[in-house]
Amino acid sequence: MPRTKGDHEARRRDVSEAVWRVLAAHGFGGLTLRAVAAELGATTGLLTHYFPAKRDLVAHALDLLAERTAARPRRPATPGLAAVRAALLDILPLTADAIASNRIWVSSWDTALADPALSDDYARKYARGRARLTDLIAAAQDLGELPPGDPARLAAGAQSFTLGLVVQALFDPATFPPPRQVELLDDYLASLTPPP
Amino acid sequence: MPRTKGDHEARRRDVSEAVWRVLAAHGFGGLTLRAVAAELGATTGLLTHYFPAKRDLVAHALDLLAERTAARPRRPATPGLAAVRAALLDILPLTADAIASNRIWVSSWDTALADPALSDDYARKYARGRARLTDLIAAAQDLGELPPGDPARLAAGAQSFTLGLVVQALFDPATFPPPRQVELLDDYLASLTPPP
Repeated sequence: MPRTKGDHEARRRDVSEAVWRVLAAHGFGGLTLRAVAAELGATTGLLTHYFPAKRDLVAHALDLLAERTAARPRRPATPGLAAVRAALLDILPLTADAIASNRIWVSSWDTALADPALSDDYARKYARGRARLTDLIAAAQDLGELPPGDPARLAAGAQSFTLGLVVQALFDPATFPPPRQVELLDDYLASLTPPP
Repeated sequence: MPRTKGDHEARRRDVSEAVWRVLAAHGFGGLTLRAVAAELGATTGLLTHYFPAKRDLVAHALDLLAERTAARPRRPATPGLAAVRAALLDILPLTADAIASNRIWVSSWDTALADPALSDDYARKYARGRARLTDLIAAAQDLGELPPGDPARLAAGAQSFTLGLVVQALFDPATFPPPRQVELLDDYLASLTPPP
């Protein structure tokens, strides 16, 4: 039976799923053709068809991470402080999927910091995240739900707080279960909005 | 001339320095016997004497990181909010040495998250950091320099904020030069201490 385009795409999806599972379990440091082949139940020979070199495998892993992050579910929220809160909750490792993708993000920092071009790419990515957050914060300020002040500066603080909470929660999920993460984020947001 | 104990220790120091420079430049992902040998101007054969296996090299790198972190200079500060601020400033990548060690810390997270025993070890390390910070915060509360409330909860928030700022500053030193980091930290501390 001849191979169809559908077969080919299904196989690519299987390969991507296997790469993702290896990353979630072992991080970028454990990402090898051999590990992906074992996860897929295939030969490393088959995988060299997709990834002629280790750097092709790493590039695919980084693409997957970017795609899955872009496609992750977002909490709906009305504009204002609720939208700021929702955007920060969307980042935290509160579900199994969000734990896996955050664990892979944190793991990717080693690879990214070692490569100047990739490091610049990450810097731009975080700058875009801060810019989106800045818009949400400015809208909350317009509604009087956050005090006046440079919204970009508040966004830089909020992004720092959230990223650091991600790291803490990944290393110590027993101390930082989802309700605790939400409580700490709400403390942080409350500190930005002192009582009138 | 026979090798003395002093020669041996000097050589061990040279090896450790070379491991540190490789980590600062390439992270744990780039830590190989070959890279350390090149940095040292030695053969990989010599290095296998110190590190029979890759895991011995990684273990030594993690020990170095722990030692250098423990031995890093600390800002003197009087008890109270000043001591909380000093402890958080001590963490930030504000100097070349602190940039190198933070870059190595962040890089080590990939290795640590992939190894359950090491991951537990990191969780305990961060818990000790929070415990120290909790004591400093409780002292500031006793002095009336921070509002009442669970000091451990404030410490978890402050540690999150600081770790996330480290990550942002490493990826984007142009956006987060030292004065900006200090400004954001001071914004954070000011948010904890609303005007009376």
